[in-house]
Amino acid sequence: MPLGNKAKIINDPLHGFLTLPNVLVYDVVQHPYFQRLRRIRQLGMSEWVYPGATHTRFHHALGAMNLMIKALDTLKRKGIEITDSETEAVILGILLHDIGHGPYSHTLEYTLVQGVDHEKISMLLMERINKDLNSALELALCIFKGEYHQKPFLNQLISGELDMDRLDYLMRDSFYTGVSEGIVGVDRIIHMLNVVNGDLVVEEKGIYSVEKFLVARRLMYWQVYLHKTVIAADALLVAILKRARDLAKQGSILGTYHPLMHFLFKDVNASDFNEEDLDLFVQLDDTDIMAAIKEWQFHEDAILAELSRRLLIRKLPKITIQLSPIDSALEALMKQQAAAVFGVNDEALLHYFVQVGVLENDAYRSDGGGIRILKKDKSVCDVAEASDNYNLSNLKDTVTKFYITYWES
Amino acid sequence: MPLGNKAKIINDPLHGFLTLPNVLVYDVVQHPYFQRLRRIRQLGMSEWVYPGATHTRFHHALGAMNLMIKALDTLKRKGIEITDSETEAVILGILLHDIGHGPYSHTLEYTLVQGVDHEKISMLLMERINKDLNSALELALCIFKGEYHQKPFLNQLISGELDMDRLDYLMRDSFYTGVSEGIVGVDRIIHMLNVVNGDLVVEEKGIYSVEKFLVARRLMYWQVYLHKTVIAADALLVAILKRARDLAKQGSILGTYHPLMHFLFKDVNASDFNEEDLDLFVQLDDTDIMAAIKEWQFHEDAILAELSRRLLIRKLPKITIQLSPIDSALEALMKQQAAAVFGVNDEALLHYFVQVGVLENDAYRSDGGGIRILKKDKSVCDVAEASDNYNLSNLKDTVTKFYITYWES
Amino acid sequence: MPLGNKAKIINDPLHGFLTLPNVLVYDVVQHPYFQRLRRIRQLGMSEWVYPGATHTRFHHALGAMNLMIKALDTLKRKGIEITDSETEAVILGILLHDIGHGPYSHTLEYTLVQGVDHEKISMLLMERINKDLNSALELALCIFKGEYHQKPFLNQLISGELDMDRLDYLMRDSFYTGVSEGIVGVDRIIHMLNVVNGDLVVEEKGIYSVEKFLVARRLMYWQVYLHKTVIAADALLVAILKRARDLAKQGSILGTYHPLMHFLFKDVNASDFNEEDLDLFVQLDDTDIMAAIKEWQFHEDAILAELSRRLLIRKLPKITIQLSPIDSALEALMKQQAAAVFGVNDEALLHYFVQVGVLENDAYRSDGGGIRILKKDKSVCDVAEASDNYNLSNLKDTVTKFYITYWES
Amino acid sequence: MPLGNKAKIINDPLHGFLTLPNVLVYDVVQHPYFQRLRRIRQLGMSEWVYPGATHTRFHHALGAMNLMIKALDTLKRKGIEITDSETEAVILGILLHDIGHGPYSHTLEYTLVQGVDHEKISMLLMERINKDLNSALELALCIFKGEYHQKPFLNQLISGELDMDRLDYLMRDSFYTGVSEGIVGVDRIIHMLNVVNGDLVVEEKGIYSVEKFLVARRLMYWQVYLHKTVIAADALLVAILKRARDLAKQGSILGTYHPLMHFLFKDVNASDFNEEDLDLFVQLDDTDIMAAIKEWQFHEDAILAELSRRLLIRKLPKITIQLSPIDSALEALMKQQAAAVFGVNDEALLHYFVQVGVLENDAYRSDGGGIRILKKDKSVCDVAEASDNYNLSNLKDTVTKFYITYWES
Repeated sequence: MPLGNKAKIINDPLHGFLTLPNVLVYDVVQHPYFQRLRRIRQLGMSEWVYPGATHTRFHHALGAMNLMIKALDTLKRKGIEITDSETEAVILGILLHDIGHGPYSHTLEYTLVQGVDHEKISMLLMERINKDLNSALELALCIFKGEYHQKPFLNQLISGELDMDRLDYLMRDSFYTGVSEGIVGVDRIIHMLNVVNGDLVVEEKGIYSVEKFLVARRLMYWQVYLHKTVIAADALLVAILKRARDLAKQGSILGTYHPLMHFLFKDVNASDFNEEDLDLFVQLDDTDIMAAIKEWQFHEDAILAELSRRLLIRKLPKITIQLSPIDSALEALMKQQAAAVFGVNDEALLHYFVQVGVLENDAYRSDGGGIRILKKDKSVCDVAEASDNYNLSNLKDTVTKFYITYWES
Repeated sequence: MPLGNKAKIINDPLHGFLTLPNVLVYDVVQHPYFQRLRRIRQLGMSEWVYPGATHTRFHHALGAMNLMIKALDTLKRKGIEITDSETEAVILGILLHDIGHGPYSHTLEYTLVQGVDHEKISMLLMERINKDLNSALELALCIFKGEYHQKPFLNQLISGELDMDRLDYLMRDSFYTGVSEGIVGVDRIIHMLNVVNGDLVVEEKGIYSVEKFLVARRLMYWQVYLHKTVIAADALLVAILKRARDLAKQGSILGTYHPLMHFLFKDVNASDFNEEDLDLFVQLDDTDIMAAIKEWQFHEDAILAELSRRLLIRKLPKITIQLSPIDSALEALMKQQAAAVFGVNDEALLHYFVQVGVLENDAYRSDGGGIRILKKDKSVCDVAEASDNYNLSNLKDTVTKFYITYWES
Repeated sequence: MPLGNKAKIINDPLHGFLTLPNVLVYDVVQHPYFQRLRRIRQLGMSEWVYPGATHTRFHHALGAMNLMIKALDTLKRKGIEITDSETEAVILGILLHDIGHGPYSHTLEYTLVQGVDHEKISMLLMERINKDLNSALELALCIFKGEYHQKPFLNQLISGELDMDRLDYLMRDSFYTGVSEGIVGVDRIIHMLNVVNGDLVVEEKGIYSVEKFLVARRLMYWQVYLHKTVIAADALLVAILKRARDLAKQGSILGTYHPLMHFLFKDVNASDFNEEDLDLFVQLDDTDIMAAIKEWQFHEDAILAELSRRLLIRKLPKITIQLSPIDSALEALMKQQAAAVFGVNDEALLHYFVQVGVLENDAYRSDGGGIRILKKDKSVCDVAEASDNYNLSNLKDTVTKFYITYWES
Repeated sequence: MPLGNKAKIINDPLHGFLTLPNVLVYDVVQHPYFQRLRRIRQLGMSEWVYPGATHTRFHHALGAMNLMIKALDTLKRKGIEITDSETEAVILGILLHDIGHGPYSHTLEYTLVQGVDHEKISMLLMERINKDLNSALELALCIFKGEYHQKPFLNQLISGELDMDRLDYLMRDSFYTGVSEGIVGVDRIIHMLNVVNGDLVVEEKGIYSVEKFLVARRLMYWQVYLHKTVIAADALLVAILKRARDLAKQGSILGTYHPLMHFLFKDVNASDFNEEDLDLFVQLDDTDIMAAIKEWQFHEDAILAELSRRLLIRKLPKITIQLSPIDSALEALMKQQAAAVFGVNDEALLHYFVQVGVLENDAYRSDGGGIRILKKDKSVCDVAEASDNYNLSNLKDTVTKFYITYWES
């Protein structure tokens, strides 16, 4: 169905114009669940380090859709058969792939809604939207779940080592942070896509662009996603939420917005996540967390108030990141220091001020299928084997780092 | 004083790197009043039309500072005497020029804090920061207020028809919205700045860039700042706040965040705006408004709840913009229509649904000094007279448009 | 016919990738006449002022083709019927629209091949290519000549006030010179194209982008195309060629490259421009002129040698540009000065050193159809009438300036 | 000495504005030897693959100067002592670092002027300019030659593994080709420069940008500098020049431009390269080669004519690139094929049609000092050791590939 009056183009500093291809897509974009993504930042706390990084999951989802349209066009031009309904379904799939993200995305994934990951929630929300739109999303769901076995490449375009999600977020995050390291040759990569035996492949001519994509991704991890100050800000946010939940258990009053209170006062987990939980979950976004923190800076609990106040004026904890695990003596020492800084003597409370954690970064994983290169002799091999100087095999190693956050004053 | 450990560079997708030039500037940026600007969008409701436009007043202030540093360098290289303390003062002046903006800036300027404009509040906050920093901002304040009569160009760089504020916001808003119409040759304009008799001038060679700046500004007004859907979203936001204030007068419960409640329940105006008001004002930002609207969607007052809900799912009023005033018959008709749509029969309440207003756009005003062009024969004239085909004289005409917002369903 | 092995994508810093849509287009691009455009700069002598402006007519033609493909897609999506053969023909038309340009394009149009304009030669070359490719360009020729009366918009896309040629060259020249003034919202303009009664129109929503396009075009004229130093360099180049032709008439030896010698020694004009002339013309490009000048710096004729040497080391004449005609007394004075500088006493020779000329700039001409705006009420009017504050009517005035070039030492 | 009337800003699409810092720099830029760089493409034959790559060594030298100015500012701000005369000298050094390049740079370095590399010629030309400018370049020469032992970092900024030359050319080549793979975080790298014990170092925070720089450089080699079609075009150009030189030895007439004839007819080598050779060398640029080829397409020697014609219409040889050496049987076979294609039976002539060669790419060499990283603990180590997952050690391996060019029809 043509769009007619509903025709819609949306400006994007990154891709120029984003065009909604038909009425169904338009209706999905208008759905309250999708509009909610306007209030969830793509990069959570990163804006405390990169002030330009205020872009949203809403914009990213539309950008990824735009790349998907280009990728499908390229494949069709190369003679790969993709029907109109498959086209629509993959477009819907990429559009909704992140619909289940909660406030501050990854940062709070396991603090606020414990034990239920965003992929699970994305699936539940897609099913609801499917119902609202008279089952128009059946095929999209099938592809999204990886159950469309005749054409696995359709799922790989949504969720693989080189999917449209990653291509858009690398470019977009790079653009909005101003970290040029993440810029990749997206157009070239898309032009080099092809399909062999149902699997997505990249033609050999595109191999340098793929290498660059992998290196860029690794660098963006260390420079942006796992930037030490971002990790410190994340740790502070998590500490605040933990304190709030602990106070909730003690019956403290924490605010009036019931969707947030629900998740502060109740332990939600995967096995009993029900329809009511979902109803309340979709009422949450970044706003609620930040508004709560603003209110909590005046809370009677000194710990909650002080941590909240510090976050708001960007007084962040110090952080040490290292290649070896954090020594427990160091942790103890830092807790003693926190006791002095905050005037808290109860040892059981010091964990709010000192956090120890692990950072992991796999630039590339070949176990789930990896990135396939189509060589000129028509054979297909993994990119790590196709590269001319085996640089890439290193990228398969998981890099693990350890951190501790603490306060000096 | 050199920055040493406090050395700080901040990424900016627009200008590359922003460097804080010294410790005093660093301390001002760290001040809670300045950090608060991280939570105030530069373009308020525009992100409902341009999803990329989530950039903040924090980033803009730093960007304008960056342009100021370049402009001062250029002038010094041309032999204009500017002392180190003047340099620092002008940098601080541009950094703080917008410090008094409240949540949703212009949109709520006269709804939430009636009768006190943001320039007034900027001044009050600069004076407070000055106190906090041992009077280090005395000269900055003097220049900012236009009282540094020996070198008027220093004030003109902060606040004139071609100041660093405008140059940064035009570029920045253009960049983040993706509306390339606003791109101007900022580097060229800055390179062409000079001073004659204490006034800022642009050398004749830069005249085309100035023309382009004026045209770009006019176009950005119609395409972004006064975009019809942005005006409609603004009108809805204002209607919600008005309803909340009216309910406050009736003793309704509207939330628990006391800084916001203060301004909802009290009529603040210029004559009695006091220290306590200011203390509470600096606790407000965009978050509080959006969080309140999220809570109000569940409010017992049907009007407040329904308008709030509509804003959150981006169900915006229709709008008509025209060159002639809105006919009162049309307004009455639209109110009747609203009565039907919302099931509200009390005529006194229909004004929440139908708003009538005026939009004005002066692309260029020469009365306050305008933009002076330094001709090759060393004479100085107004840009509107210097242009070779007098196009620009049109830009001095105020363009006035009239709008009405209403609901169809 | 699909491209298969001939599939070809070409990098373009401006548009990303340029894709050749089919075999016929590929064959046209491979044709020696088209490859020759690689050796003709888009902006002639402008690189002496803007060193980045070394881009070629080859690249521009491909870029304009790329915009044409987007424009046709947009129109088809809006329901305008355009057949596959029309699509191909318009693409070929835009690709070949400038095929008849000679070395240094406009600069030498009337010096080297007097009386035959490049449009005429473009037509002759298109007809030859048509023959080489078994009449595959019949429809393209018909549209190019404006003889395809059932769909005038197809010709307007190639050659009108808002054609794909202009959109590409404004963007491209702006990009390569680094003069950001010329940047226009090409994507937006293309998205707003439509067809009414067979004519190309722009939907009202795009009016600000059209205004910006017109203003940008005017500014690019004064800042780049008619930049005073570019005019001075042009004048020097023309003087060299004139001297060479005059020496040719006296039997002087000027080189060995026969295609260039042909046009130096023979007066070619429109009425007797024959097949042999055309055969030799396609052997000429920028290289030949510059190589000749390099050789002529050692010529026995002092005037030719000195002017050539000056051009090569970028010692350009001075220039005065003004709104009133050049006084003949000034011209005489400057000739006297040249006599002293160059030690030339023969008055008949002084015209090589002092040139007087006229520059004209119409930012917009509505007489040939102009730019039509489709208003919301479905009426169509000229953009100069549709604009809200009548700024644009000024742009219809031809701006005329007068110049004189001369030497000071 | 301030620039005054000679003040000069030059547009650069890449860096914005390039400003000449003083009169001496201005005079060097005006020198005929420097102006000659306007006619030498930065990337030689690459424009046959990347049509945007027509940028010149003139523009690159100015761009590298611009980065040098920024780097020196950064170092001074960090307290590194650099005097005004050192500043000027380093700026002149980078400006002139490539002044000795001949036509088509690397492609013809060993064909046209055998046995004399461009570094040697650069030195000779700098000495001449030094003489012309009253020995103003003494210190620049000293630093350029690596003889300024008190501050080795000054030479390292001109010529090291991370010098301003490389930073500019990577960015510039990436920009003009449209290959985004080469974009590097130049601003960040420059901000992270420092000096320890007289050597240039990069602060640890910049390590990811350095990694990215090395990877980008490697990728640009394979994707642009050693692109297979570029190698094929180079091989054709070299074959043409070889054939011309061989014909010269037989007394054939090859043209009239004596500087080119000089190098075609004489075997110039390092030991006897004299002042007259240098006088003629500076009269050569890309124009002369292309003009000669244009003339040679009509030469009576069939081989020279046919190869020249093919180059002009971009009919390039086929090429095979592989990791193992080219089999001599394959070479023989390809020569037989060439014999058939060109109708040449004399075996001694077949080498013009089939060329075998080696390509080498060291992304990073640490032997000459490498890139030093200044760690947080103040120790300095090589970047290949500092990287967290040892990826970079691979980049030290030289990658060697072998190619053969041949003709199919």
